[in-house]
Amino acid sequence: MPRGTTKLRLLSTAADLLHRQGYASTGLNQVLGEARAPRGSLYFHFPGGKEELMAEALSGAARGITELLERTLRDAPSAEVALYLIVDYFCDQLERSQFQKGCPVATVALEQSAVSDPLHAACSQAYTAWEALIAGRLVREGIARPRADELAGFILASIEGALILCRAHRSTAPLERVGGELRRLLTRKDDA
Amino acid sequence: MPRGTTKLRLLSTAADLLHRQGYASTGLNQVLGEARAPRGSLYFHFPGGKEELMAEALSGAARGITELLERTLRDAPSAEVALYLIVDYFCDQLERSQFQKGCPVATVALEQSAVSDPLHAACSQAYTAWEALIAGRLVREGIARPRADELAGFILASIEGALILCRAHRSTAPLERVGGELRRLLTRKDDA
Repeated sequence: MPRGTTKLRLLSTAADLLHRQGYASTGLNQVLGEARAPRGSLYFHFPGGKEELMAEALSGAARGITELLERTLRDAPSAEVALYLIVDYFCDQLERSQFQKGCPVATVALEQSAVSDPLHAACSQAYTAWEALIAGRLVREGIARPRADELAGFILASIEGALILCRAHRSTAPLERVGGELRRLLTRKDDA
Repeated sequence: MPRGTTKLRLLSTAADLLHRQGYASTGLNQVLGEARAPRGSLYFHFPGGKEELMAEALSGAARGITELLERTLRDAPSAEVALYLIVDYFCDQLERSQFQKGCPVATVALEQSAVSDPLHAACSQAYTAWEALIAGRLVREGIARPRADELAGFILASIEGALILCRAHRSTAPLERVGGELRRLLTRKDDA
């Protein structure tokens, strides 16, 4: 394996483990083992150790969702269809991962936001970016700016919460239900 | 200190640590130290060890929220006022804990639901109870049963998600915004 891929393997392995089990459960030995990377490579690529590796891995995973939202919110024929597709993506991921994978940011946000500044910053930036993308699409649908921002925050919160409920119940029903409510909300957006 | 209180001290210390930092970060030595309890007491009261102690502590913390919801949803003059009071309670708790305490169940639900059956059961039962209490109050407001259940799921998801966003941003603004949206939703409940 070429040496240049070690950093990428460390990041993608760390992101996958963070997503499934959170920060505290993810030990560096597990990351090194699953990435088949020598211990020395960790501090070579991430002098700040675990916190630096995990913050960069989390930001990378968050960018994956940002790109998904960008593409979906740009290309879908309406905000309702875009939300349907986003909900469908997460339902599929929950099922395929046996309910181990919901939002790649939420577990770390709950575990670490209050105690780690780099992880707090990575989580906060991700949520801010996602909310802005949703609000941008609502503006394109003709909703005035302050109202679009309010609705985007509500939409993001309800999807994030539904992803917790899905993992807690090991069922996609809470997210499907929230998807239905959001479509209902948006189809009467003139009075929203 | 009377011996009979050791179990209660273990449970309340474990619940507090679970709430702030989740399951994986909470070591038994930290629980024993903060509870000023001898190691032998742990396996005497909780033969199943960490998982059993934490599942019982989590259920106890969840019951605290269940009682808060029961009381508030029963006594408030309307569902809108009840939701306002619930949102206000969580905003206050977030601020007083410097954003270390949101929902006492969510962190563990994300970390452990997929891997621990006792913790999965404790989280799932808590969310089911809370949703049923919200739905019950909506029925009392005159909303027909299937619609009340749908709305209760949406309300619970949006509050849970807002609690994540508040911790990620270290701000109560996301929850205050969701509170406003929920009041808006309920005041036009005849067409909800």
